[in-house]
Amino acid sequence: MRDYRLYSFWRSQAAYRVRIALHLKRVAATIVTVDFASGEQRSETYRAINPNLSVPALFVDDGAPLVSSLAILDYLEEVHPDPAILPEGPRDRAHARALAHAVAVDAHPFIVPRVRDYLEQQLGAGAAARAQWIRHWLDRGLDVAEAMLSGDARTGRFCLGGTPTIADICLVAHITSAKMLFDYDLGRWPTAGHIYQTCMTLPAFLETHPLRQPGAPSELEARLR
Amino acid sequence: MRDYRLYSFWRSQAAYRVRIALHLKRVAATIVTVDFASGEQRSETYRAINPNLSVPALFVDDGAPLVSSLAILDYLEEVHPDPAILPEGPRDRAHARALAHAVAVDAHPFIVPRVRDYLEQQLGAGAAARAQWIRHWLDRGLDVAEAMLSGDARTGRFCLGGTPTIADICLVAHITSAKMLFDYDLGRWPTAGHIYQTCMTLPAFLETHPLRQPGAPSELEARLR
Repeated sequence: MRDYRLYSFWRSQAAYRVRIALHLKRVAATIVTVDFASGEQRSETYRAINPNLSVPALFVDDGAPLVSSLAILDYLEEVHPDPAILPEGPRDRAHARALAHAVAVDAHPFIVPRVRDYLEQQLGAGAAARAQWIRHWLDRGLDVAEAMLSGDARTGRFCLGGTPTIADICLVAHITSAKMLFDYDLGRWPTAGHIYQTCMTLPAFLETHPLRQPGAPSELEARLR
Repeated sequence: MRDYRLYSFWRSQAAYRVRIALHLKRVAATIVTVDFASGEQRSETYRAINPNLSVPALFVDDGAPLVSSLAILDYLEEVHPDPAILPEGPRDRAHARALAHAVAVDAHPFIVPRVRDYLEQQLGAGAAARAQWIRHWLDRGLDVAEAMLSGDARTGRFCLGGTPTIADICLVAHITSAKMLFDYDLGRWPTAGHIYQTCMTLPAFLETHPLRQPGAPSELEARLR
């Protein structure tokens, strides 16, 4: 049995992805909190772990840490293939990855703290302009995912058929950020909304939720729904 | 033999990644130009191909198009495994993917036209502020990649040892954008710079170069060096 230590922060959408995958695969990991609220990710200690200054980072036994949530999801799939979080067949796997990337690559990078800091400090964007920026990319990620899902015969209870894949993991993490930040209603994205509701009946998505992590504020609890 | 049609545009860093992989794997594909200069990616025809309105998109025989360059790289690796563009072993594959993501996920999304448009139209950022934004994320991607490469014993002539992987493909595409846009000198990133030079001796990186694509302006040719 490998020894896993996951560097995580409650609010991080990327760390949530990895917690879901670990739970689905029934792999135990010790959670180590990196306190983004106090800027701990910019410490020299953490910079040596992940020069990107982001979570997650996954230590496996005594090896060098693995970084990038999408790379870690692939690692877990290779080392713990059952249950799978990628569908069978290269075409379906490409579709699952493309759905994951619609939110995790083409939306999520825009809403992280270092980008909000740049908007404020370099471009003089006030709080309202920064909120509009975040909503714009959250919306766009959901628009693209909804278009890809609603027009595809492979879409089922989950993004591809009847079991969760990396596409669902990334979609739920994205929607969870939208709900925590702005209490999103999903009426505009009915297919994505149904899939989110289905996922939120599963312990792997519920028990690893950001609001159930160390340091999460209790007043957001109502937005779990 | 499969029939491949790659929707591409000369300037696109993401399309370049896929052209390199196809060449490395000796897979022939017909190149179809999507003219971003005239906004063709926003046409209804192209929206039906890729709701993300980006290139590349890859048609394989009569199937639905594959989108997202990173998903297409994985597809090609699965269908045409020799020569490999991922190293052996889950840990090394995770490292190659994380290096790829340092530039392709955490830098490239910031410099595409739809983001530059948002900065100009929604945030009132002028030409100088937009150029500074692009350079900031190009620099940051290289800083992270350099830190990951310079501190890792697996780094060789290429990002991992002696053969090119997805890490080299994404790094070279990133640096190529930096050179085409701002004539970057790589002195600040010596490890990445050496790897770039090594890659640029290979036909797979040279013959698929953006400036050798249909529609590329000839006056940038000097920046190929």
